[in-house]
Amino acid sequence: MAAFLPASPDQAAFRDELLAQGMLLASDVPGLYGHGAVFDDVLCAVDQWLGRVGAVEHPEQLRFPPLIPRRDLEMNGYLSSFPHLAGTVFSFEGGQAEALEQAERAGRHEDWSRCQAMTELTLTPAACYAAYPAMGARGSLPPGGATLDLGPAWVFRHEPSGDPARMQTFHMREMVRFGEPETVSAWRDRWRDRSVALLRSIGLDARADIASDPFFGRAGRMLAASQRDQELKFELLVPIAGPQPTAVASFNYHHDHFAAPYRIRTAAGAIAHTACIGFGLERITLALIQTHGPHPARWPEAVGHVLWPR
Amino acid sequence: MAAFLPASPDQAAFRDELLAQGMLLASDVPGLYGHGAVFDDVLCAVDQWLGRVGAVEHPEQLRFPPLIPRRDLEMNGYLSSFPHLAGTVFSFEGGQAEALEQAERAGRHEDWSRCQAMTELTLTPAACYAAYPAMGARGSLPPGGATLDLGPAWVFRHEPSGDPARMQTFHMREMVRFGEPETVSAWRDRWRDRSVALLRSIGLDARADIASDPFFGRAGRMLAASQRDQELKFELLVPIAGPQPTAVASFNYHHDHFAAPYRIRTAAGAIAHTACIGFGLERITLALIQTHGPHPARWPEAVGHVLWPR
Repeated sequence: MAAFLPASPDQAAFRDELLAQGMLLASDVPGLYGHGAVFDDVLCAVDQWLGRVGAVEHPEQLRFPPLIPRRDLEMNGYLSSFPHLAGTVFSFEGGQAEALEQAERAGRHEDWSRCQAMTELTLTPAACYAAYPAMGARGSLPPGGATLDLGPAWVFRHEPSGDPARMQTFHMREMVRFGEPETVSAWRDRWRDRSVALLRSIGLDARADIASDPFFGRAGRMLAASQRDQELKFELLVPIAGPQPTAVASFNYHHDHFAAPYRIRTAAGAIAHTACIGFGLERITLALIQTHGPHPARWPEAVGHVLWPR
Repeated sequence: MAAFLPASPDQAAFRDELLAQGMLLASDVPGLYGHGAVFDDVLCAVDQWLGRVGAVEHPEQLRFPPLIPRRDLEMNGYLSSFPHLAGTVFSFEGGQAEALEQAERAGRHEDWSRCQAMTELTLTPAACYAAYPAMGARGSLPPGGATLDLGPAWVFRHEPSGDPARMQTFHMREMVRFGEPETVSAWRDRWRDRSVALLRSIGLDARADIASDPFFGRAGRMLAASQRDQELKFELLVPIAGPQPTAVASFNYHHDHFAAPYRIRTAAGAIAHTACIGFGLERITLALIQTHGPHPARWPEAVGHVLWPR
């Protein structure tokens, strides 16, 4: 069992409130929730707003499912960096007798893991992981590179927690930029700065900060330090609940980390660089509810105008 | 490995067309696709249209993620009926040494299944599976029962196929009715008949037929026969590609199969009955493309009015 991350007292109180209001629906697995009507309405409004904002770049719209090929997880570096967060899909391959054994063990809530075998599928850790092989299959980028809008994708992180803002599966709304190094890193910086203003326009007390990914183990601490030194990752932090503000968006410059294994090339023939920006839709929704209360109709008029225009 | 279902020649040709048009993006796993901009645009229009149509019933809006608790799969009967279609989520639980071994084996595309352990999570087989425990947790239904709109949920079926209409993960748009037996079965029948007209209004050559679920094994054949005898399942069939028309929606009356394990009771205190209707959004999108061609702007005006009103 992955270590359970307990909630702080104010996180636990916020979670109880959300459940009592029907914003979230509890399951018997920590960090797995259904969404009530109001929560979903706000989440969709945030999603559509960010889509409208991103449309100024005329990104290509691509959408990917919550699963990616296992082979991509094997070759994109995720298992070295984040083995503890990855999820793989197993399924049944037996006949009559094995099916009966599996159903009986499962019915008694005993261990039936030996009845399951690994498939070709894994859970999507971030929406952009599916985009790199798709772009690699196309050949060279057009002059100027490419920008993708990946919409609101379901992603997975195996980190069961009592903090309602740390879900095991949630919507990440991502855009990805492919191109020359300077183009890509400037794009990442521009969106970071712009996004601070965007989140402030919906009344959130957001600030940007240098950040690092939750790399695994001892070597991971060095990777994290190097990532900070090179300013590869920024996060937007907003107070939700807990002792620290919560990251609700991240802005990542990958150099050629993802383009190299998939041979994504610029029009000039060099291996491209990539950057992605990702907004955590559930976290932004929680921040809005925490900041403005559980009744969107009573939120400040300016916030309503942004999220529900006309 | 699950048996691969090969495509018929016309299914393979349709798949090639869809990939060449950028409607779908291939992955290296059969039945796993990205969606291009036009495909997603049509799929979203179908989703929103069905949401508007369903709104006449004033259903409660609930949304659920692509994962459900393993415990629900263990107690809802799915593993007895459909062990071959279920997916379970495994993850890593080791330390430094195990992480290194896993990454090395995975990097060489060798078997790394022994590095993974079963989690508390499984893939959602149908959107409504998450709704039963949620409704059970509420206590009795209000008088008249309840109707849920579960929106466009990602579901999983482990059946790798070359038929583009048989995806391993896809969007199912479901509504669920809870209440007295007569109320629930009449609701199911009304939506079945209404849905034939709905699909015809977007130019699809739809007809309803008695159907059965793909139950596993020898005992499954008897379950399927009994399901047909009792008329528990109807499907809407539309020609897409292949020797038979494709099921694009289903209308299922469950008696107390789902309400009993979760003790979902009517206002009068009896175990409720349930029914669900589910629309396969990718399949309806494929049927529209197959019927009207790859350019929605050139589809019949009447179809456009339905899908993109105003």
